[in-house]
Amino acid sequence: MADKIRLLYAGKAKKVFETTDPDYLIVEYLDQLTALNGAKLEIKEGKGIVASQISNLLFNYLNREGIKTHHMKALNNREVLVKKLSMIPLEVVLRNRVAGSLEKRFKLERGQKIEPIIEFYYKNDELDDPFMCEDHIRILGLISEEKLVEIKNLTNVINQLLISLFNKANLELVDFKLEFGLDKNGELILADEISPDNCRIWDSQNLTSLDKDLFRQDSGDVIAAYQLVLKRLEEITNKL
Amino acid sequence: MADKIRLLYAGKAKKVFETTDPDYLIVEYLDQLTALNGAKLEIKEGKGIVASQISNLLFNYLNREGIKTHHMKALNNREVLVKKLSMIPLEVVLRNRVAGSLEKRFKLERGQKIEPIIEFYYKNDELDDPFMCEDHIRILGLISEEKLVEIKNLTNVINQLLISLFNKANLELVDFKLEFGLDKNGELILADEISPDNCRIWDSQNLTSLDKDLFRQDSGDVIAAYQLVLKRLEEITNKL
Repeated sequence: MADKIRLLYAGKAKKVFETTDPDYLIVEYLDQLTALNGAKLEIKEGKGIVASQISNLLFNYLNREGIKTHHMKALNNREVLVKKLSMIPLEVVLRNRVAGSLEKRFKLERGQKIEPIIEFYYKNDELDDPFMCEDHIRILGLISEEKLVEIKNLTNVINQLLISLFNKANLELVDFKLEFGLDKNGELILADEISPDNCRIWDSQNLTSLDKDLFRQDSGDVIAAYQLVLKRLEEITNKL
Repeated sequence: MADKIRLLYAGKAKKVFETTDPDYLIVEYLDQLTALNGAKLEIKEGKGIVASQISNLLFNYLNREGIKTHHMKALNNREVLVKKLSMIPLEVVLRNRVAGSLEKRFKLERGQKIEPIIEFYYKNDELDDPFMCEDHIRILGLISEEKLVEIKNLTNVINQLLISLFNKANLELVDFKLEFGLDKNGELILADEISPDNCRIWDSQNLTSLDKDLFRQDSGDVIAAYQLVLKRLEEITNKL
C-alpha cells in the first residue's frame, strides 16, 4: 500500500503527494473553487468530495472502455491513488458547443453546436496558460509530432465515449479540458481530473449549466449542480 | 486605364478605391503609422511613399518568381493598381525568429532563430484581430480546408523567396504578415502589402530594427530605416 510522504504540488483544486511507492501519487481533491486564473476564489464545503467522485466514475468508465488513464483507485472520499507520470505541460480543450473563451474571442452564439474542435493552452501559471497553436508546441519542444497526433486522436475518442455516457444521463458535454502524461515506457496516459471543475456540462433538457460556470458567474448552487451530475452519471453507470 | 471612382475602404495605412474597371482597385499608401490596433497613431511624412516603393519592389520580385499577386503596377509614388479580389479575413503571420507577441506570449528570447512557424489571426477590428488556430478557421468557415493548405504552402514558399532576396541585401527577415484573396476563378492570390509596416526586418550585421518596431517603441527614425531597406533592396534587385 502506498502512503503519503510529501506534498509534491499544491494546485488550485488539488494537492498532489508523493507516496512510499515511487510509481504512484496520491491526489487530494480540495473544496476550493477558483476562476480567472485564481483571482476569484471560494471554499465550497464538499466540492472536493463530489468532484472526486465524478472524476473517479469517469476515469473508471474510460478505463473499462480501453483508455489508459492514471487513475488507480479511490482511497477515501477525496483522495485517489494515481500513476506517477511525466506530465506534458499542455491543456487540451475539446469543444462540442460554443461557450466561454470561444464565445468571447469570436463573438459566437453561446450554445451553438460545432464540429468538435481542439485547442491547446500552454500550462504555465506565470504566463497565464496562453492559448497556442501546434507550431508553438513544436518550437517550445513540449512534445513530439507523433505524440501530438496521438493526443488529438485520443482526445476525440474520449470525447465520443464521454458524449455517449453523458447523453444517456441527460447531460450535454459542452467542452472539457484534458491533461496527459507519459509513463516510464513513454506511453501516453490520460491524467488530471474530469469533473464539472474542468468540463462544461449542461442539462440536456433546458441547457442550464451544471458546472463551474455557476461559480464563475455566481448564478447558482455549485454543490447541488455537481451532485445532480454525479447522481445522473451513477444511475446510468449502474445500469451499464 | 482604370480611374478612381469611389473610396471603398479607409484602413490604418492605406485607402482603397474602386475604379472605372470593376476588376481593379487603386490602393493609396498613407503616411499614417499606427500601433496597438490603432491606439497609437502618428503621421510621418513620406512613409506611404517609401512603404509603397518597397511593397511594389517585393511584389514585382514575387511576380517574377511565379507567385500570383494582386499587384499590377505603380500609378505614382503612393498609388498602385491592384486586382480586385474577394479577400479572406485572415492575417497569416510567418516567423523566422522570436519577436513581438511570440516573445511576450511565451517569454522566449528575442531574436532566437526558430523553424519557420505560421500563425493565423482573424482579421476583425471589432474583435481586435484575435489569434486563432486552424480549427477556429474551420468552424468560422473562413476558407476551405484545401485553400488553407494552399495558403500555408504558399506562405512558406514566399518566405523562402523573400529570405533569399533579403539575405543578399544584408537584411534579416524576422517575420511578416500576409493577406490573401480569391480571384473570379477562385484562385488564391497574394494581396495587401509587404513593407516594414507589416514585416520585421533587421540589419543582418547588428540585428537592429529597420521596421515599424522603431515607431512602436519610439526607438529610432522610421523613415530613414524604411529608406535604408528600400535602398538595399533596390541595389540587389538591380543586380538580379
